[in-house]
Amino acid sequence: MAAPLKDITVLSFGRMLSGPYASMLLSDLGAKVIKIEAPGTGDLSRFAKPEYNGTSSYFLSINRGKKSMALDLKNEKAREIIFALIKKVDILLENFRPGVMDRLGLSYDTAKKLNPKIIYASISGFGQKGPYAQKPAFDMIAQGMGGLLSMTGHPDGPPARSGYSIGDIGASLFASTAILAALHERNISGEGQWIDISMLDCQVALGENACSRHFATGEIPQPLGSRHPLFTPFEAFPTKDGYIILIIMKENDWDKFCKAADKIDWINNEKFNTLEARLENYDLFLSEMNQLTRSKSTEQWIKLCEENALMCGPVNNIKQVINDKHILERDMVLEVQNKNDDIFKVVGTPMKFSKTPCEINKASPELGENTEEILSNMLGMSEEKIQKLRDLKVI
Amino acid sequence: MAAPLKDITVLSFGRMLSGPYASMLLSDLGAKVIKIEAPGTGDLSRFAKPEYNGTSSYFLSINRGKKSMALDLKNEKAREIIFALIKKVDILLENFRPGVMDRLGLSYDTAKKLNPKIIYASISGFGQKGPYAQKPAFDMIAQGMGGLLSMTGHPDGPPARSGYSIGDIGASLFASTAILAALHERNISGEGQWIDISMLDCQVALGENACSRHFATGEIPQPLGSRHPLFTPFEAFPTKDGYIILIIMKENDWDKFCKAADKIDWINNEKFNTLEARLENYDLFLSEMNQLTRSKSTEQWIKLCEENALMCGPVNNIKQVINDKHILERDMVLEVQNKNDDIFKVVGTPMKFSKTPCEINKASPELGENTEEILSNMLGMSEEKIQKLRDLKVI
Repeated sequence: MAAPLKDITVLSFGRMLSGPYASMLLSDLGAKVIKIEAPGTGDLSRFAKPEYNGTSSYFLSINRGKKSMALDLKNEKAREIIFALIKKVDILLENFRPGVMDRLGLSYDTAKKLNPKIIYASISGFGQKGPYAQKPAFDMIAQGMGGLLSMTGHPDGPPARSGYSIGDIGASLFASTAILAALHERNISGEGQWIDISMLDCQVALGENACSRHFATGEIPQPLGSRHPLFTPFEAFPTKDGYIILIIMKENDWDKFCKAADKIDWINNEKFNTLEARLENYDLFLSEMNQLTRSKSTEQWIKLCEENALMCGPVNNIKQVINDKHILERDMVLEVQNKNDDIFKVVGTPMKFSKTPCEINKASPELGENTEEILSNMLGMSEEKIQKLRDLKVI
Repeated sequence: MAAPLKDITVLSFGRMLSGPYASMLLSDLGAKVIKIEAPGTGDLSRFAKPEYNGTSSYFLSINRGKKSMALDLKNEKAREIIFALIKKVDILLENFRPGVMDRLGLSYDTAKKLNPKIIYASISGFGQKGPYAQKPAFDMIAQGMGGLLSMTGHPDGPPARSGYSIGDIGASLFASTAILAALHERNISGEGQWIDISMLDCQVALGENACSRHFATGEIPQPLGSRHPLFTPFEAFPTKDGYIILIIMKENDWDKFCKAADKIDWINNEKFNTLEARLENYDLFLSEMNQLTRSKSTEQWIKLCEENALMCGPVNNIKQVINDKHILERDMVLEVQNKNDDIFKVVGTPMKFSKTPCEINKASPELGENTEEILSNMLGMSEEKIQKLRDLKVI
């Protein structure tokens, strides 16, 4: 059976990351996503390096499966086309700075008049309202202002950014959840609504536990490297060829580890034989653990821990991730094809459905690849009329 | 109007973080969430420190608004109650290790027979299938095996964990999106399905750009602190009292910054006057920038950059986050109340709806707070029968 949103159409004004990632989720789920782009240039992420077989790898990875329509939004005739499309779609998604859609004559109020059923989702750095609403924001700004940077990195060191763009993508995921909740509500009420997603708000929501601790105790969480604040060992330790994460929460498991690691003397060593002792003598403990873990490879440690039912895992780099047998078996690396039959690898979807699986097989579209198809099939426009739009550089 | 999922009921076997965060999203969206917990102990996160007015802050923050039903799942009579509830709910959510629900007699196949419309969502470390399916996983393991740790931290330093638990919460957000997509599909087909979410898969999906770069070039992304790989300045710099993120992508903005920072000589300094030059002389550049940025407070830099329309933001710690005027005005800090009228602060939701706003006003339930209410109201059970279950220690 087809993917779960097969009957849904999305009109997307998303650019760069947060908007396109959200509409990619909807596209992966089976929705038809029409990406509106400026003629000539398109989404600026098309220019992001590096290239992958002539396409921006950045653009490709989050725009696979979508349709591209090139349209000069500053042209009055383009607005008419958008108005006609608004009447036919279920969801409109945009991630301009607040006010831009209004200045383009495409505000929620306008869209709602044309189509009261439309679900109109806006993603922005700080949301549609509030003192910072007009400030620009990139992923890093959201990570920094939302508290993530202050908790990431090593003790007493400079802040570190989360290695992927969770400032943007966090907002995409809250947006997809909210959009689909509104879709459910619309199936009952018959009416759409406006969803306002702020990247900064999403960071606060993702940091809920740190906030909750602060509400409880006034404590301000600090970066701890990969360490757990309350348990040890519970972090990444260096091995001969990488790092291993070792998690021990029960004293019984600590004894098992000592035996397996041939460190039986640690079981009765007063400095290490209880969690309290290990925490109290943490510096010494860490230095001895590091010396121990460096004596074997990551694979050797994994084998040893698994044989003893101890929780562990490697710190994989990206090459190891995308070549991991489990990840491959879970279809997390897929091949997609563009209209020239070029093949590209992309990351699969983690949303696995038993009845209506996602189908991901198309690459990202070329700029304007589907302009005429949409004008003709969705709006019933004649070839003559389309040619006129072409001559006027509207498309 | 009420929140968008007001007609939806969720039966949740979630414990710790990934399951409860997912059902919290549904609860925030208006769904009635029945949390099944073991009598006597309950969700083990109830014991997580620190306490907040006598309740675990960890438990509170992700279980607000839910109903708690205490039920000994190993008792045959409990299973009958669960069967009766399965017939009445829309969504079942669980995050046990694969196979546990089956052993409890509560597999998807069983649930489907009782209620073909049920949407049954399973979150686990590695998913229901694949070579690692039976391995246990915590947040850190998912972050490590999925590549995030390898890209987070400082160059040549040990890996760092993302400061919040995105290994768990990433899975919660993909789960909520998938569940609501299945709900839409069910509104059309009349049938539910099984959703299989793996924490590790979700990490791969969040790391899409790093994977895509690797597919394109073979490059293995390394940790870069807070630095951008292609632009500079584009990172967090130390100030007199914290850090400021400064992002400059256009040479014109660089000149503006130099003027504003009273470093006019940098405009014509060959080592710094182009992006290429700054990247080539990065070590020198960083050292001089650090010296410069340390000369003023974060607030002074923000003011200066904003006056010159330069993209910037502070690195806020959690105390600064939850006291920020914008975050407060966006209702990202809320007060909730338990049945004893104790008041707790919790983080708000970033899902802002124009028509059906989320209502968050109840704290987390006490263990078994709603057991009798559910047995009586949802299953029509008599007080006598409930007393019998109590005597038998089923509830």
